[in-house]
Amino acid sequence: MLPAPARRVIQLLSRLPGVGEKTAQRFALELITDPELATELGRELEQLAGQVGLCEACGNLAEVQSDRPTICQVCADERRTKSLLCVVARVQDLMAIERSGAMKGRYFVLGRLLSPLDGIGPDAIRLSALEAKIESDQVREVILATPPTVDGEATALYLGRELAARGLVVTRIASGVPHGGDLEFADQITLGRAIEGRRGVGP
Amino acid sequence: MLPAPARRVIQLLSRLPGVGEKTAQRFALELITDPELATELGRELEQLAGQVGLCEACGNLAEVQSDRPTICQVCADERRTKSLLCVVARVQDLMAIERSGAMKGRYFVLGRLLSPLDGIGPDAIRLSALEAKIESDQVREVILATPPTVDGEATALYLGRELAARGLVVTRIASGVPHGGDLEFADQITLGRAIEGRRGVGP
Repeated sequence: MLPAPARRVIQLLSRLPGVGEKTAQRFALELITDPELATELGRELEQLAGQVGLCEACGNLAEVQSDRPTICQVCADERRTKSLLCVVARVQDLMAIERSGAMKGRYFVLGRLLSPLDGIGPDAIRLSALEAKIESDQVREVILATPPTVDGEATALYLGRELAARGLVVTRIASGVPHGGDLEFADQITLGRAIEGRRGVGP
Repeated sequence: MLPAPARRVIQLLSRLPGVGEKTAQRFALELITDPELATELGRELEQLAGQVGLCEACGNLAEVQSDRPTICQVCADERRTKSLLCVVARVQDLMAIERSGAMKGRYFVLGRLLSPLDGIGPDAIRLSALEAKIESDQVREVILATPPTVDGEATALYLGRELAARGLVVTRIASGVPHGGDLEFADQITLGRAIEGRRGVGP
């Protein structure tokens, strides 16, 4: 009973991550009652693909320029250490690490994780692109910053083996009790890792 | 550190109901990695305002036609009883009641509810448009189907007084234990209403 254009918008909106039929309907109604927002968002989205893409070197977001390859700000910044490479699962993870200010090197975005349980094996991740990045930047240390989940750990384990065999220093981000966290409410695995990963203190 | 077009899309997406900065970012990343979806959605949204609007008679969604006033399917359907009018808060509520198949009359969408606590008084709801609809359709009974919340009840109370004073039959949708619901887990107010609103059974 909805007008056809509204149905088409709802169908498209429900392809966004975590958006079901009901939420898409709410979005569509908001857009119908706020035509200015709909038109402005529509114009931006139509142009988006031509303006923003993934960095050809690392998979980060980058502005598309017609006259040269799509390279992100991080890869274009010559002041950043080339020999230190941080491998992350998603662009959001890269942005989170950038906000921490602790990473002086460069990044590589896998795009997805290995998922043995879902049958996603080594062929699905961009290993050859990662190897190309390692070679062109003459990387010496690779930091594996995939999340401390089952799939993230499986990916780190696999990449760790592959890259160590090539003579690279491979490290994994620390897992433990988060800053400001309460030990009482930390889960067993997190606490176990905090103990295992303990570091020397004092002189 | 995001490219400007991506930032603009995120800012617009976060104006959708219930969407914060993080969710808007996730949507934007999905749209960047799926350029086809972004372009198609963009095209549909740009055209949306010119294709779908609110019915001039009742506030329901309606297809916009350049050569005649914007009237929805319900208002255009001459088989529906004109003398019975159901007043709802939102278009979603209208669609929910339509799915029930229990309403043979027509609708009026208020768009918003009175909210004494937020200082939204009778001037904010479309009372004169409602009166115009009642007059043109020669309505005899008005069903108040605003939600059984504080604002919904306040609105029903106000409209009930105003419309009853004009000699109309005014009714309120029943409030009680929902179909399939468990009495044990029903809240006190719902159970109280179920008892108060009891109906005779048997011959």
